[in-house]
Amino acid sequence: MKRFWSERIRTLVPYTPGEQPKDRVFIKLNTNENPYPPSEKVLQAIRDAAGEGLRLYPDPEAVSLRRAIAEYHGLQPEQVFCGNGSDEVLGLCFYAFFTPGKKVLFPDITYSFYPVYTQLFGLDHEEIPLNDDFTLPVDRFLGGNGGVVICNPNAPTGRTLPLSDIRRILNANPDVVVLVDEAYADFGAQSAVELISEYSNLVVVCTMSKSRSLAGMRVGYALGNADLIAGVNCVKNSFNSYPLDRLALAAGEAAIRDREYFELTRNMVIKTRERTAARLRDMGFTVHPSNANFIFITHPQVSGKLLQQGLRDRGVLVRRFDRPRISEYLRVSIGTDADMEAMCAACEEILKG
Amino acid sequence: MKRFWSERIRTLVPYTPGEQPKDRVFIKLNTNENPYPPSEKVLQAIRDAAGEGLRLYPDPEAVSLRRAIAEYHGLQPEQVFCGNGSDEVLGLCFYAFFTPGKKVLFPDITYSFYPVYTQLFGLDHEEIPLNDDFTLPVDRFLGGNGGVVICNPNAPTGRTLPLSDIRRILNANPDVVVLVDEAYADFGAQSAVELISEYSNLVVVCTMSKSRSLAGMRVGYALGNADLIAGVNCVKNSFNSYPLDRLALAAGEAAIRDREYFELTRNMVIKTRERTAARLRDMGFTVHPSNANFIFITHPQVSGKLLQQGLRDRGVLVRRFDRPRISEYLRVSIGTDADMEAMCAACEEILKG
Repeated sequence: MKRFWSERIRTLVPYTPGEQPKDRVFIKLNTNENPYPPSEKVLQAIRDAAGEGLRLYPDPEAVSLRRAIAEYHGLQPEQVFCGNGSDEVLGLCFYAFFTPGKKVLFPDITYSFYPVYTQLFGLDHEEIPLNDDFTLPVDRFLGGNGGVVICNPNAPTGRTLPLSDIRRILNANPDVVVLVDEAYADFGAQSAVELISEYSNLVVVCTMSKSRSLAGMRVGYALGNADLIAGVNCVKNSFNSYPLDRLALAAGEAAIRDREYFELTRNMVIKTRERTAARLRDMGFTVHPSNANFIFITHPQVSGKLLQQGLRDRGVLVRRFDRPRISEYLRVSIGTDADMEAMCAACEEILKG
Repeated sequence: MKRFWSERIRTLVPYTPGEQPKDRVFIKLNTNENPYPPSEKVLQAIRDAAGEGLRLYPDPEAVSLRRAIAEYHGLQPEQVFCGNGSDEVLGLCFYAFFTPGKKVLFPDITYSFYPVYTQLFGLDHEEIPLNDDFTLPVDRFLGGNGGVVICNPNAPTGRTLPLSDIRRILNANPDVVVLVDEAYADFGAQSAVELISEYSNLVVVCTMSKSRSLAGMRVGYALGNADLIAGVNCVKNSFNSYPLDRLALAAGEAAIRDREYFELTRNMVIKTRERTAARLRDMGFTVHPSNANFIFITHPQVSGKLLQQGLRDRGVLVRRFDRPRISEYLRVSIGTDADMEAMCAACEEILKG
């Protein structure tokens, strides 16, 4: 019907998140969740905060959480913005830093929420085709635009840009914001956070959904110089004063402070990833080098569609994007060793098929 | 500096939430929080959900929560949208239903976030002056506009529009959305929810922050016909797929299902409000009739500014809006009987001078 819809949302095409099955139990390798539970310290912090205080609004400035994040990254609290998951943080950053009529650049194959934000906020963008091996054509990002967005490691390919290339892009774009989305960087990429002191045009966006096992709590954040962070705050305070509830604030702070558990679990994911990649290569899969908690794979003998369906039939959910250039690929999140063993066994069965 | 800020946020004036003091303990009557804790069933639901499952994304459709809300209001789940507090829900509704160039109407004295949303989203609006007694000039809202927003009971006045007037406004605006913000309706106003089956242009926005004692958990929702709700969903899914975390979903569902506790606590607030209003009137205050969990008061012998400062000096926080027509007024949230006793005693002291 759309009778009462505003004119500008009639053509809006929303982002489609990965399936959250409710009917049966799957080995869930489709939304890049962490296979390990949150730290026990996080659960304790939530239990401690789940009391009478919930009748009161949360701290709209998230001071305590921002202080903990700043300490972790060696920054000042004024350089930290916290939001309701990195999706909200990214959306607010797009609105804060990019201006209609000036093209924002990002790759053709990347996080598919970026073009949705530009559409929502009436921004213009240009999708730069990745090279055939899914590496980034850095030369195409060197200026003459209204901003740059790089997901690093990139989703859904897992490919990583070295810091030297990020530097080249920052140097060539001194008057616009370069946003580096590091949702997956904790799984092996070099973070651009160390460049924040050098570049006033750099914003790095992080999430606790992946490497901190907190997808269920919606905690994301942006890092950058205080002037940039003030801009995101201005937009946030014009939309929703309190995006993080009291339990999310408590959980996020406990998660960022528990370095030991973080190191333990991310290293387990990294080891499982490398073991799985090796095994799949032995089975004839092309597996792109990944520094994320997923791998991007294709097989010359089975179509992406059949492989995804075959895995689903065997109780394993993975994600496939029905888009040009990558429709034959599957993005497989890294689960436990047992999850990946089951996934590999299912692949073997399908290949024998 | 604002060097890298997008052109359109350079003049944006964000909403200012009420103070959340961190330094000392106040009797906090400044942000319309509920003085009673959330239901024990809510706290238990949170504890039950605070486990391993937090590593997984929440349900982006909030199916279970929406079902519970629909049952409570006698609607279908397709008629319910859930968001991160009613502020987010309102923002998404403004974007979904109002079109740039067509004036949205709301009163000059109302929730001060409304003009912020119109600024953020590039919308036009007209502020219709309330009558001198802060009642709504209904005739000024009867058509020729791009939408209507009515906070009922109104904030910060507490004044309520009868359903017959809401009907008149709905009848006179058949081609645009009439949004009724019922954040405070549970404290004594007649809800417009019963009109949803009759009017396809009606959206009612509710929150669990006030009457459900859950300001700390950020749960708000919109009710309307399925086509309108689909519009809000379209915007939400273009901004943030998962605005409610797993604990907020669990808390919200438990809260809406616990009718007994809800009735008990809202009736306590209502009784305390009436008792406080009577006492303040005896002290010479003008107290507007209120169906909300706050009262709007002024005194002929003390300025609003001095009264607010005097209360603060005595450990009581209340809210004053330094805006035309209402700068002599204080908005006082209803606390426990003891809170209000302390507040009234402080007023007596101040009046004695």
